[in-house]
Amino acid sequence: MICDLKEIDQLGIFDGINEIIATTESEDGVFNAAPMGVIKKDDNLTVRLFAGSHTYENVMAKGEFVANVVHDPLIIVETALSDLSKDQFVRRQGVLTLKDAETWAFFKCDPTQVDISIPRLQFVKGEVLWKDFRSINRGTNLVIEAAVAATRYVALESDLYYDEIIRLRRIIGRCGGPRDIEAMQRLEELLGYSV
Amino acid sequence: MICDLKEIDQLGIFDGINEIIATTESEDGVFNAAPMGVIKKDDNLTVRLFAGSHTYENVMAKGEFVANVVHDPLIIVETALSDLSKDQFVRRQGVLTLKDAETWAFFKCDPTQVDISIPRLQFVKGEVLWKDFRSINRGTNLVIEAAVAATRYVALESDLYYDEIIRLRRIIGRCGGPRDIEAMQRLEELLGYSV
Repeated sequence: MICDLKEIDQLGIFDGINEIIATTESEDGVFNAAPMGVIKKDDNLTVRLFAGSHTYENVMAKGEFVANVVHDPLIIVETALSDLSKDQFVRRQGVLTLKDAETWAFFKCDPTQVDISIPRLQFVKGEVLWKDFRSINRGTNLVIEAAVAATRYVALESDLYYDEIIRLRRIIGRCGGPRDIEAMQRLEELLGYSV
Repeated sequence: MICDLKEIDQLGIFDGINEIIATTESEDGVFNAAPMGVIKKDDNLTVRLFAGSHTYENVMAKGEFVANVVHDPLIIVETALSDLSKDQFVRRQGVLTLKDAETWAFFKCDPTQVDISIPRLQFVKGEVLWKDFRSINRGTNLVIEAAVAATRYVALESDLYYDEIIRLRRIIGRCGGPRDIEAMQRLEELLGYSV
């Protein structure tokens, strides 16, 4: 068993792909925050890293990262498509976390493992700061889908993803709250097109 | 102002469309549970009812319903496409709620208002029972989209919604936890097709 399952449950990490924001630091001290999937299956924790990303380089260099549980759609969009300013990070118990994190979990992994793109994680420590609670909102949910489509649109420049973003924007505009609509506007601003 | 905004925030109801499960009772005492959108905009609360539904008939007859905040994907699917058994309801403070509700809010509305399909709501009372907390999971989120597509598929029998359900099922299978995958299997069982 590689982690205290009860504790990690309390941090909001359950079986399936947990969409969290990874905070890492480069060897010369540059902070990075990016969305990442922490995959939990029973007592097994792994992460999928994309070669060439800052997160990948930092995790490979230091063998550690913090998984920040966040539900704020604006933070998701900002970290998916841009960089956070330095004042949006804060060091807690000696590790780099997001200022607005709801919970955070510090993981170590061994970059020398066979399949380095899917390292096994070792949970070290974590903390509950606050817990967002709201009813299901399709708008909030679909900002995540729009952020996924947007990163693929940037990487592949396919009209398919553009059409998907437009489709999602309609539902977000109808169902979302002010923060969801703000996040969607920011997403389109960061993509650099106006529709 | 028609509600105590601070209190309703604590029940998980915020600006935008809150996807909740409405519990209602017919004049001859039959319990009903169905997904419904409670629309909040500043201090204004409304609800969109579909003429002919049990929820519509019960709200029109009695001028009241309970909004249950629930995140369990299996309950969403079950109430969207089928009926709950009587033992899944429980009376709390004299009103009919879901046994597994996280929070509930009791609303009254005047069915004789001009536009009866969008009655204004008056918040009466509510209760926090427990609060689900977990990181974002695209699988969990997309079970809601699958339930929306499924109710439209049942109503319209369009291949468009069938294709959407198949597309969502792939992502739910990859990202979801065991409960999301169970909910999706139940959805397909209730739709009566196997793929």
